[in-house]
Amino acid sequence: MTHPIVYSNIAELMTMKGLQANDGRHVGAKDLAVVKKAAFVAEKGRVVWVGRESRLPTVFRSSKRVDCQGLNVFPGFVDCHTHMVFAGDRVNEFEKRNQGASYQEIAAAGGGILSTVKATRKVSKQALVDLAQQRVGKHLSQGVTTIEIKSGYGLNPQSEIKMLQAAKALKKARVVTTYLGAHAIPSGTTQAQYLESLKRELPKIKQLGLSQRVDIFIEKGYFDLSAAKEYLVFAQELGFAVTIHADQLNRTQATQLAVALRAKSADHVICLNSKDKKRLADSETVAVLLPAADFYLECDYPDARTLIDSGACVALASDYNPGSSPTQNIEFVGLLARLQMKMALPEVFSALTYGGAKALGLEGEVGALLPGFRADFFLSNQSWEQFFYGLGGHDVFRTYVGGRKVFSKK
Amino acid sequence: MTHPIVYSNIAELMTMKGLQANDGRHVGAKDLAVVKKAAFVAEKGRVVWVGRESRLPTVFRSSKRVDCQGLNVFPGFVDCHTHMVFAGDRVNEFEKRNQGASYQEIAAAGGGILSTVKATRKVSKQALVDLAQQRVGKHLSQGVTTIEIKSGYGLNPQSEIKMLQAAKALKKARVVTTYLGAHAIPSGTTQAQYLESLKRELPKIKQLGLSQRVDIFIEKGYFDLSAAKEYLVFAQELGFAVTIHADQLNRTQATQLAVALRAKSADHVICLNSKDKKRLADSETVAVLLPAADFYLECDYPDARTLIDSGACVALASDYNPGSSPTQNIEFVGLLARLQMKMALPEVFSALTYGGAKALGLEGEVGALLPGFRADFFLSNQSWEQFFYGLGGHDVFRTYVGGRKVFSKK
Repeated sequence: MTHPIVYSNIAELMTMKGLQANDGRHVGAKDLAVVKKAAFVAEKGRVVWVGRESRLPTVFRSSKRVDCQGLNVFPGFVDCHTHMVFAGDRVNEFEKRNQGASYQEIAAAGGGILSTVKATRKVSKQALVDLAQQRVGKHLSQGVTTIEIKSGYGLNPQSEIKMLQAAKALKKARVVTTYLGAHAIPSGTTQAQYLESLKRELPKIKQLGLSQRVDIFIEKGYFDLSAAKEYLVFAQELGFAVTIHADQLNRTQATQLAVALRAKSADHVICLNSKDKKRLADSETVAVLLPAADFYLECDYPDARTLIDSGACVALASDYNPGSSPTQNIEFVGLLARLQMKMALPEVFSALTYGGAKALGLEGEVGALLPGFRADFFLSNQSWEQFFYGLGGHDVFRTYVGGRKVFSKK
Repeated sequence: MTHPIVYSNIAELMTMKGLQANDGRHVGAKDLAVVKKAAFVAEKGRVVWVGRESRLPTVFRSSKRVDCQGLNVFPGFVDCHTHMVFAGDRVNEFEKRNQGASYQEIAAAGGGILSTVKATRKVSKQALVDLAQQRVGKHLSQGVTTIEIKSGYGLNPQSEIKMLQAAKALKKARVVTTYLGAHAIPSGTTQAQYLESLKRELPKIKQLGLSQRVDIFIEKGYFDLSAAKEYLVFAQELGFAVTIHADQLNRTQATQLAVALRAKSADHVICLNSKDKKRLADSETVAVLLPAADFYLECDYPDARTLIDSGACVALASDYNPGSSPTQNIEFVGLLARLQMKMALPEVFSALTYGGAKALGLEGEVGALLPGFRADFFLSNQSWEQFFYGLGGHDVFRTYVGGRKVFSKK
């Protein structure tokens, strides 16, 4: 792929040009910048030209062609918050929960997050890779080309490293890893002891190149605000970017901490007061909304409308994990955003491309089809107006990452 | 298929034997009567034997075999309430609705049910068949083998007949048609005039064999209770079975009418008081719950728990239509039943098999895999405990109707 390749015969190509100018804020249909009868050129895995096919520069006229068969082309989606590496499932726990069992009863019956920790610790790295690679395939089949994956089901040094190594070993998708050792406090230790142990691990994570990002779950019964702050500042001093599971079940002021620390993102952001929302909207921290988790947990949805209307940069992600969001269905995430959070369709596209990219520090790299961006995209026979609607799965024909075909519908 | 065929090498086979005994009421896991290491025999499209493979009767030992490859076998699902024959879509209306447009504004912009009537009237019967046949394929790919399809987007004699003829022309699935001329009152006519015109049509519908069932939408702004009663009694006198869109948006007492008329089913049944629920639970009328419509319309869900606990026979269906329930996702229907209506998983299976069959008057014919039943079934690598959960689409490998393979995963 060192020679330019022309992708031609495209009915509609969504470039996202407008989002670059407005930083993914106050997004309208015109910001998606859909080009009709389009073509684009990729070279060395990056886009080098995009436009109307009739205006293809002479220099590319004799280049190798890929016929897009009159389909539509979209920039690959970015899923900026997942827990995709894990073993076991929690199917039985879901039935018990719906039938009225309390969290205590579920935990007593061996369920809850610690059951996933147990299952994840037990298996080999290769087993984790095999499980997660299948899940990557499901994401690719829906046009998701960049996937953030957190650790956090190890909760001890070797298992956390095993999870990150497994995530790093995944193929085909663009994977961004995040160190979430601070997902929960393992039994038999205190918050202070556990965070100290994590701090001892951080230089190694960095040195092994396993992750450039650190996340923490600030919540009653998990990590508190001041301890989290100290931990995140320590991580930043080591050069990590930080992100926070913030204000999901209770208002802990974690979102305000995220803004104060210039965190890449504050995720969940459900229990916010108006001041929290204003701070977030005025910041460069991305509001990552995870409506599938809210659906499965039957909790409130974040106030997307206020956040967006006051100028926040918003991302949508799956939060895919075996407990609170056991779904990889990206169409469902977008549908919930439209129906339950009243996000307009262009805002959904922006949140799944520009917003996700910015949350991962990949703005300018992924989430758009413009010169300089990675050639991450998918082909569909649906027009953009038909997305995130009927839950039949959006119809993805082929998916490419860095110009390489990684999924093809059969 | 006049010779017996043995389907063998089945990990688990869900027979539904218990449901036959308890009439689909107070359903537990044991009523699903799952047989391990199972086999069954079909002849002339019907099941003639089911049991442990080790106990296969000698007489079938030399019969032709189909190797089920260690997969699990389930009776085909019954979707007993759909509007699957239609033209056009209402994608843009969905966006407008989410962005705050009123029904009046949507109607003024050419949306709403009348836009589907317009689109459906305009196309040929064959065009309707082609569109609906694709949709049938999607249902089959999810293990749905029996599909009820209503008219009601014609609203004049010739278009209603065209819709029923299109439904009758569909292949592969077992289709049950329902005459829903009384879906809405066309503009330029009164309720009384329109119902009189429908009554003139009914003998012809019957005579042409287009439907054995009559449905009506009793609701404010649609048909009122007393006019509906007279119409349904007239239909019953002609030999039609009746069913009612009942108490969906307002309490109209339509459910009590359904019980009084011994209707096959009362559908939606959201706005019920405790007396309505008691009457329904004590009757032979099936409560057809349509949670996907409730999800898309953002209205309340029916009180499934009280209905079931007081002994109602409950069915779940998709209500697939381009306006209020634009999804064919059966997994989603079951997931909503679990999460939003607190139905236990065995109750969901019962509602999608026994309940649906009874609503269509097909109990003893479909919805179970027992001697005498149609050989309508599907193969999956999922165990029943894994269904209606992750929204990845349940993994159907092959679907059979009357012993004939009608879907195969590629």
